Amino acid sequence: MSKPANPANFAPANFASDNVAGALPEVIAAVTEAASAGAMPYGNDPWTARVSARLRDVFECDLWAFPVATGTAANALALSAICPPFGTVFCHPASHANTDECGAPEFYTGGAKLTLVDGPDGKIDLAALTTAIETARPHGVHNMPPAAVTITQESEAGTVYAADHVDAIADIAKKNKLALHMDGARFANALAALDVSAADATWRRGVDVLSFGATKGGAMAAEAVIFFREELASAFGERRKRGGHLLSKMRFVSAQLEGYLGDDAWLRAARAANAGAASLAAGLTNIDGADIVRVPEANIVFAKLPLPVLDLLEADGFGFYRVGSDGTIRLVVPWSVTDADVEGLLGAVRGHIGPAV
Amino acid sequence: MSKPANPANFAPANFASDNVAGALPEVIAAVTEAASAGAMPYGNDPWTARVSARLRDVFECDLWAFPVATGTAANALALSAICPPFGTVFCHPASHANTDECGAPEFYTGGAKLTLVDGPDGKIDLAALTTAIETARPHGVHNMPPAAVTITQESEAGTVYAADHVDAIADIAKKNKLALHMDGARFANALAALDVSAADATWRRGVDVLSFGATKGGAMAAEAVIFFREELASAFGERRKRGGHLLSKMRFVSAQLEGYLGDDAWLRAARAANAGAASLAAGLTNIDGADIVRVPEANIVFAKLPLPVLDLLEADGFGFYRVGSDGTIRLVVPWSVTDADVEGLLGAVRGHIGPAV
Amino acid sequence: MSKPANPANFAPANFASDNVAGALPEVIAAVTEAASAGAMPYGNDPWTARVSARLRDVFECDLWAFPVATGTAANALALSAICPPFGTVFCHPASHANTDECGAPEFYTGGAKLTLVDGPDGKIDLAALTTAIETARPHGVHNMPPAAVTITQESEAGTVYAADHVDAIADIAKKNKLALHMDGARFANALAALDVSAADATWRRGVDVLSFGATKGGAMAAEAVIFFREELASAFGERRKRGGHLLSKMRFVSAQLEGYLGDDAWLRAARAANAGAASLAAGLTNIDGADIVRVPEANIVFAKLPLPVLDLLEADGFGFYRVGSDGTIRLVVPWSVTDADVEGLLGAVRGHIGPAV
Amino acid sequence: MSKPANPANFAPANFASDNVAGALPEVIAAVTEAASAGAMPYGNDPWTARVSARLRDVFECDLWAFPVATGTAANALALSAICPPFGTVFCHPASHANTDECGAPEFYTGGAKLTLVDGPDGKIDLAALTTAIETARPHGVHNMPPAAVTITQESEAGTVYAADHVDAIADIAKKNKLALHMDGARFANALAALDVSAADATWRRGVDVLSFGATKGGAMAAEAVIFFREELASAFGERRKRGGHLLSKMRFVSAQLEGYLGDDAWLRAARAANAGAASLAAGLTNIDGADIVRVPEANIVFAKLPLPVLDLLEADGFGFYRVGSDGTIRLVVPWSVTDADVEGLLGAVRGHIGPAV
Repeated sequence: MSKPANPANFAPANFASDNVAGALPEVIAAVTEAASAGAMPYGNDPWTARVSARLRDVFECDLWAFPVATGTAANALALSAICPPFGTVFCHPASHANTDECGAPEFYTGGAKLTLVDGPDGKIDLAALTTAIETARPHGVHNMPPAAVTITQESEAGTVYAADHVDAIADIAKKNKLALHMDGARFANALAALDVSAADATWRRGVDVLSFGATKGGAMAAEAVIFFREELASAFGERRKRGGHLLSKMRFVSAQLEGYLGDDAWLRAARAANAGAASLAAGLTNIDGADIVRVPEANIVFAKLPLPVLDLLEADGFGFYRVGSDGTIRLVVPWSVTDADVEGLLGAVRGHIGPAV
Repeated sequence: MSKPANPANFAPANFASDNVAGALPEVIAAVTEAASAGAMPYGNDPWTARVSARLRDVFECDLWAFPVATGTAANALALSAICPPFGTVFCHPASHANTDECGAPEFYTGGAKLTLVDGPDGKIDLAALTTAIETARPHGVHNMPPAAVTITQESEAGTVYAADHVDAIADIAKKNKLALHMDGARFANALAALDVSAADATWRRGVDVLSFGATKGGAMAAEAVIFFREELASAFGERRKRGGHLLSKMRFVSAQLEGYLGDDAWLRAARAANAGAASLAAGLTNIDGADIVRVPEANIVFAKLPLPVLDLLEADGFGFYRVGSDGTIRLVVPWSVTDADVEGLLGAVRGHIGPAV
Repeated sequence: MSKPANPANFAPANFASDNVAGALPEVIAAVTEAASAGAMPYGNDPWTARVSARLRDVFECDLWAFPVATGTAANALALSAICPPFGTVFCHPASHANTDECGAPEFYTGGAKLTLVDGPDGKIDLAALTTAIETARPHGVHNMPPAAVTITQESEAGTVYAADHVDAIADIAKKNKLALHMDGARFANALAALDVSAADATWRRGVDVLSFGATKGGAMAAEAVIFFREELASAFGERRKRGGHLLSKMRFVSAQLEGYLGDDAWLRAARAANAGAASLAAGLTNIDGADIVRVPEANIVFAKLPLPVLDLLEADGFGFYRVGSDGTIRLVVPWSVTDADVEGLLGAVRGHIGPAV
Repeated sequence: MSKPANPANFAPANFASDNVAGALPEVIAAVTEAASAGAMPYGNDPWTARVSARLRDVFECDLWAFPVATGTAANALALSAICPPFGTVFCHPASHANTDECGAPEFYTGGAKLTLVDGPDGKIDLAALTTAIETARPHGVHNMPPAAVTITQESEAGTVYAADHVDAIADIAKKNKLALHMDGARFANALAALDVSAADATWRRGVDVLSFGATKGGAMAAEAVIFFREELASAFGERRKRGGHLLSKMRFVSAQLEGYLGDDAWLRAARAANAGAASLAAGLTNIDGADIVRVPEANIVFAKLPLPVLDLLEADGFGFYRVGSDGTIRLVVPWSVTDADVEGLLGAVRGHIGPAV
């Protein structure tokens, strides 16, 4: 564990989150253009109209899209539209809604409960979901009635729900009259991984509402809550406004989405990130003493390295997130990744592990 | 009423809102620069640190600043930090919190009540405030206890609270143990109008929390909730997060604020808007058949014109907001206003009113 | 002002509230009987079933009744079933929901707004209601959409809405797709005053939900939220439970209602109270120096007496409530009133006013 | 399985819940007495004052007591006083707050989360609690901060926390600045089982707030939220009112509590229930083919019987609650239990199991 990882002209990459990346040039260009002229506020502008039209093209259907600035807002607002204050939302224990939103779902729904349904690889298990729904109300009004299911695509474990998995969850949801929400903070990465159309990944599978993420994928601060059923969207304008998420100069969020979606910039960015993750995983697999936890399906790699190596990597300036204390780390590969970023980390790992390990 | 207002090379200006303007070049430049490199998410970035430092300089004191993307979020979150779910906030009937936030204050506080205290020219009357507080709890726990006062600086009527007015309100608030919030969506315009320092306009007057607006003043989507008393800010991080207002790529909001505050761009922009409003009002005063409702103190002009003239102006493409049905209109002058914008409107009014009126 | 009002064997009556009275013997008998045997909890008991059946008889229609223990719960829960968290409820400024429930409507609805609509004699003015509804949403999603109207029957001013007044309010409500709630904390007094059937006073007039009060009328702690439209009641069981208002030994509330409704005890009690109020008002009218504010229509008398007389009456031990500081008082006559109670107060007033006044 | 369990003069007992019992004669007598005279409303009456005094005697300390009508209200209101809307309450998965209150804790706190901490026999495990607290906030404001712990005494499993167990939980709570709430729906049963003073079971162990139950123990509908630290109670009057839990004729709840507490009726009733449970468990243990799940520590017995026997017992008219589908049942012994009730069930079990089993 001796070779310096960090030659003079090398910048150690930050794999702590996709949020560490900047913004796509297409996004900045669109925002700059939008800044140069006047427009009516609160979404009554051409950018917002064009984004809705573009999303209809992308998803090949009629839809009701509401841009917001954060993923937490998108998720919590979406859930508030499909779950009453006294209802239950079924979600994976590792879901962002459960672990990282400081109670936003509870706040926006007005007090609903997140009921946790586990499953391997960050995905909800079908049998566990069925059991959870069936046993949710042994005492009638004493228990919070099931109202919705939310799944994360790409999941927090870096995996992707296959089409038939989503179908099966949608079936269970429909049978029990639950709405199905998809947290698509990394929707582009999932789509690139699945290599299917946006329609095939969502409403054709039975998804009712999608948090369509763009921030992680290359925007500055732009998401859209997309409803595939009009009746669910009926009061969403009011919900978004009272949450403080109706931007006065909405065009600046819409312009980001336009830049992101235009000319498939979003999919190219996602493919780059996914390819980076695959290279990173392949490289780690080839290093004695390094391991990956599972083969990454999109842009997140979970790996396991000796603790002293982690210390050295941090000292080098590499960014990643330690999961627990056994050497497991999470590496999120952003759209802006370069071959040098990946090679830089692999080289450093090799150097730190050294011939003796 | 015959002369065409709209020669070929003339674009009628939009005075519907300051939100119709684009963004200051300084803001766009800062955002573009921020997009080009990586940074840690959720405010753990150099831009956010620098904005806090810059605000401390601007306000000449220690303070606790929390950037958010919308004015509604800033107001509602600020009120939630100073009013319990069962408390009362005193506000002017015309205040944005009361009229235009679709219940965001009620939502964020968890059910608090806005108690309306009227006063001329969009400003809370001192005697009315005292009476409202004193009569708020005839029945003890049956009534919602007074918790806070919120004032709007610049007010929705285009007026500005004088220093002694704020002092008197702060005195009443302090005597009754109420916190004092200032909605500063147009704070820069007020400051430019008062020609005092930011400190003299706020904490030296007894303001506890400020919604520091930048969006209307030239940003894309950037505000900051600024606490001048640390104990009020203790759980604000959690409140902002669960409201979905902690941006993952926070630097893009902070960069806007940095661009806005840097080199006094904000004050220059506000002075330009105020000067435009003064020109507009002066011009209207000089037109027979046109009237202003009151002399504008910052960047909002209330005027009264014959209804047929309003129809013609709208047909020309001018933007403004009709207040009631008697010909009263609101003209908000944005930072981007030009002499041509003002002259264009005045010329059109003159043309439409014509010699016969 | 000299004669003692309070001979040795005389107890000065308490007109502070109808809540000062005890409970009807029929109510205590029913509760005592219910205590002597076992029963399934949470409303799965014969008392609760019988009360629903009895209410269907009383109201001559199918209905969905939910017993609760307080009037505040009945009102706030009822409003939560007909107004979304971002909606507006129109109510009179003097309504209990607005003045005396410490924000319970805001709490239970999840943040809805009470929009005040004034009118003489404690009743909502029709033109004012129409205007309030029509002007409630100048800015679309920026304003909280109208959702419901609530009226109080008997009103807090001691007046009673005539049938055509309720008809007109219901018409306005229906035209605007608002639900109509009636706060019937003193419903029995109103019914006795109007001398109509319960059906004619409610659903035949267009009332959708009634807070059917019994506590003030002679129960210990018993009310019922009665829905005349099934779809409004669909999730009320859950709402009541999560509010903590589903009593485990529900039969003890239901038994109160059964005792109250049985053999028309409730109407006899209400008629006695109303008659007492009429006697009190007539007596005061006949005393020089005493005045009534308006002729009472049910069981509440507003009177005006010299301030020194009020001091003496309070010293005697009489109970009443001062309204403002000009000598206006509110006298609520409970079901338990006796001729001696009324005569006692009148005699005391006469004595205190004296020949010289 | 042949002998009839149900001779002509025998009524099968209901062990479904302690709520199936009626009310103690002392409670009914107190209520009847309270009904016969007038009193000021909303707790400004002698009964309520006397109950507070009596509770101070019982608990040997100063305290702040707030009567309410339901246990759900007591728990949810108590938690709302010690946990902010964005906070976390640690509770056992089997706790009533988690399983049977339809989201009342979430509603009253304004959106707080219940974090489940398991442990054997219905009691929170100490190590699990420590781990849960320590791992609750890996991401700062992204996670809901720990605010309170709630334990149930007697637990839902029929067990009782020993003094040193409560001490240890209180230590953990104090070290982490969490408040400690005790759900005492069956507090009297726990006290009788522990044979200690009320003080030794609560504040001397570090309990900050107690839901003091009386309904299950023999009242009709009466509980009290008891604070042992004044600062926690500061706004509780408003919280209770806006929840609709401030009874207008409060004396009727207070009178129940007075009857319940007077002359130690509550403890005698609890001892009778506990003794009944002990007899029932002992009897079942002596029947071949019947089993108990654990030795009951207060008034709840978990037993296991052959499924056909359960069917026959239900056909007889016995009341109990099936837990799962393997023959496990819950038998709650109410204060009103008689030897005949216990013997009746045991005889029926013996008869149904028969000699052949």
